Amino acid sequence: MNKLNQALAKIKPFDKKLYEQAQSRLDNLTKPIGSLGKLEQLAKQVVAITGNQNPQLKKKVIFTLAGDHGITEEKISAYPKEVTPQMVYNFLRGGAGINVISKYVNAKVVIVDMGVACDLELVGYDLANFRDKKVAYGTKNFRKEPAMTKEQAVKSLETGIELVEEQLAAGVDLICIGEMGIGNTTSASAITSVATGSPVEKITGRGTGLDGSGLKHKIDIINESIKLRNPVKTDALDILSKIGGFEIAGMAGIIIAAVANRIPIVLDGFISGASALAAVLLNKEIKDYLIAGHCSVEPGHKIILDYLSLNPVLNFDMRLGEGTGAALSIPIIETSVKILQEMATFDSAGVSRKS
Amino acid sequence: MNKLNQALAKIKPFDKKLYEQAQSRLDNLTKPIGSLGKLEQLAKQVVAITGNQNPQLKKKVIFTLAGDHGITEEKISAYPKEVTPQMVYNFLRGGAGINVISKYVNAKVVIVDMGVACDLELVGYDLANFRDKKVAYGTKNFRKEPAMTKEQAVKSLETGIELVEEQLAAGVDLICIGEMGIGNTTSASAITSVATGSPVEKITGRGTGLDGSGLKHKIDIINESIKLRNPVKTDALDILSKIGGFEIAGMAGIIIAAVANRIPIVLDGFISGASALAAVLLNKEIKDYLIAGHCSVEPGHKIILDYLSLNPVLNFDMRLGEGTGAALSIPIIETSVKILQEMATFDSAGVSRKS
Repeated sequence: MNKLNQALAKIKPFDKKLYEQAQSRLDNLTKPIGSLGKLEQLAKQVVAITGNQNPQLKKKVIFTLAGDHGITEEKISAYPKEVTPQMVYNFLRGGAGINVISKYVNAKVVIVDMGVACDLELVGYDLANFRDKKVAYGTKNFRKEPAMTKEQAVKSLETGIELVEEQLAAGVDLICIGEMGIGNTTSASAITSVATGSPVEKITGRGTGLDGSGLKHKIDIINESIKLRNPVKTDALDILSKIGGFEIAGMAGIIIAAVANRIPIVLDGFISGASALAAVLLNKEIKDYLIAGHCSVEPGHKIILDYLSLNPVLNFDMRLGEGTGAALSIPIIETSVKILQEMATFDSAGVSRKS
Repeated sequence: MNKLNQALAKIKPFDKKLYEQAQSRLDNLTKPIGSLGKLEQLAKQVVAITGNQNPQLKKKVIFTLAGDHGITEEKISAYPKEVTPQMVYNFLRGGAGINVISKYVNAKVVIVDMGVACDLELVGYDLANFRDKKVAYGTKNFRKEPAMTKEQAVKSLETGIELVEEQLAAGVDLICIGEMGIGNTTSASAITSVATGSPVEKITGRGTGLDGSGLKHKIDIINESIKLRNPVKTDALDILSKIGGFEIAGMAGIIIAAVANRIPIVLDGFISGASALAAVLLNKEIKDYLIAGHCSVEPGHKIILDYLSLNPVLNFDMRLGEGTGAALSIPIIETSVKILQEMATFDSAGVSRKS
């Protein structure tokens, strides 16, 4: 786990001085002080993250990580697990929500097989933006045994780091994360309950569309599994290996590498939020670097955002995953930086100040 | 007022059938039903507004209307009224918030002098996207007398209609409105109180930055003015002429013309919300056509949005005006339509449905 430790060691405390300097610049622009609200918060944060007074957000990459979950044996999802590979094909054909949004926001989508439970049939697809990083054919059923080994958890985290390193070499200015994996709201709910201490009943939602009795069953399975696996609440590797997922650990690795390299990282919904909880357990400085693209309908997501003191860019009642909520926030984040760079000051424009 | 009456008569009831047909199409796309939340609402609304199953939102125009307010004599603003023309020059030089945002969202800004209280000195500026439509040199002080005559209110409304007609001739797919006018939150607060029945104390905010005693004074002035002018709460022309503003009436005219011609119209903040109240009083069908770009910090804006049952696209704690909140919502509205047009269906992608 050399790669993981090196990335974690590289992370610096959030640069509060740069953050405040950016606010001073914003206060000189031709607008009432603070009148661009959340846009100003984002601009300051991007300056502090990147360490650049004039950050460029030209190259945007969205990582959509796919993985399967053994816990689907317990019938905790409204959709069959075959949907995971089917959606990977859909991503590769460009027909999914994330494809449409990313095209419009001018971002590249990299699809990653972190642990789909079958051999993907990829003949005939354009694989330029596909990465085969399969750690295993889905996790184990964590009601019965740990989801994965500690080695697999580390491998997943380090895969996330490698994914970022590859994009760094090509030049990347902003990274979004998202996922696809039938059953993964069950894993995310378990992680969120353990890491935040919030009860499973408050966190767990309908995922892709469970009915009332399905939701109750899901809650029971999660409570039972947490009791049986008993992960240490402060130990990210223990949590990820016992009740995690390959795509969840992979996203945590992406977060760590992005922060270590001062690239703005935009979270998507509930599942990527669970990844963020794991990443912050590994290095608490990460918290200040995170940008929450949106707040999902899944009740656990709001709990994560509050726990991490994150103010989401969008509140759109979305719950699709794939990185869609993160991607949709890109134009807003880009605009925030343009405000800082292109607006006139009171002096340059000859506009009178507040009397 | 022939032009106004013709536009009002042209407005058709919102097409609920098209709205529901669009939902059926959305439900066949490869995503859990309803999982794109507000994005789906927007896509459906744009389909119903335009009457087009595959609406194109290529040409976007933002109208930023400037006007001065005689009520500034009562010291109800933190900024001097000279800022109105100074900001018009800033718009024409491209240094204001709306210039930066519109450039990024690929929209054209048309700056309109509806009633700035001086002769603008425009030599040397590029005036291709400037329109001189000055109705008068600012409104009268509505604590002492009506803000304008009924004829001026009609002229302002019809100017808004003409502005839209000109863009229709050039081809326009989406219209945003915004404004600049020192003192106009005072007029907007008065209009909102009269039209919604909500007390002035709940509606009135700090505008560009009043302190506590300034806010109390502003509330007193508004309450006194409403009592003295006594506008009829169901009569938009009476309200606009007694306590309105040229840019507020102009925006109401733009709303009416956009709806009459089935062009999506995006409101900005509190002031444009007051315009929407006036427009809806003139034709109640308008309500279903409105898109609220954002919810402003000004407390009266939330009251307007609730009164009109509008769900704002963004909640960004912004209060700049100019059309900035409307403009910032453009990428979101455009993306919503792309989702409808470009995502694969379950059948076309071979993805299994909910079990």
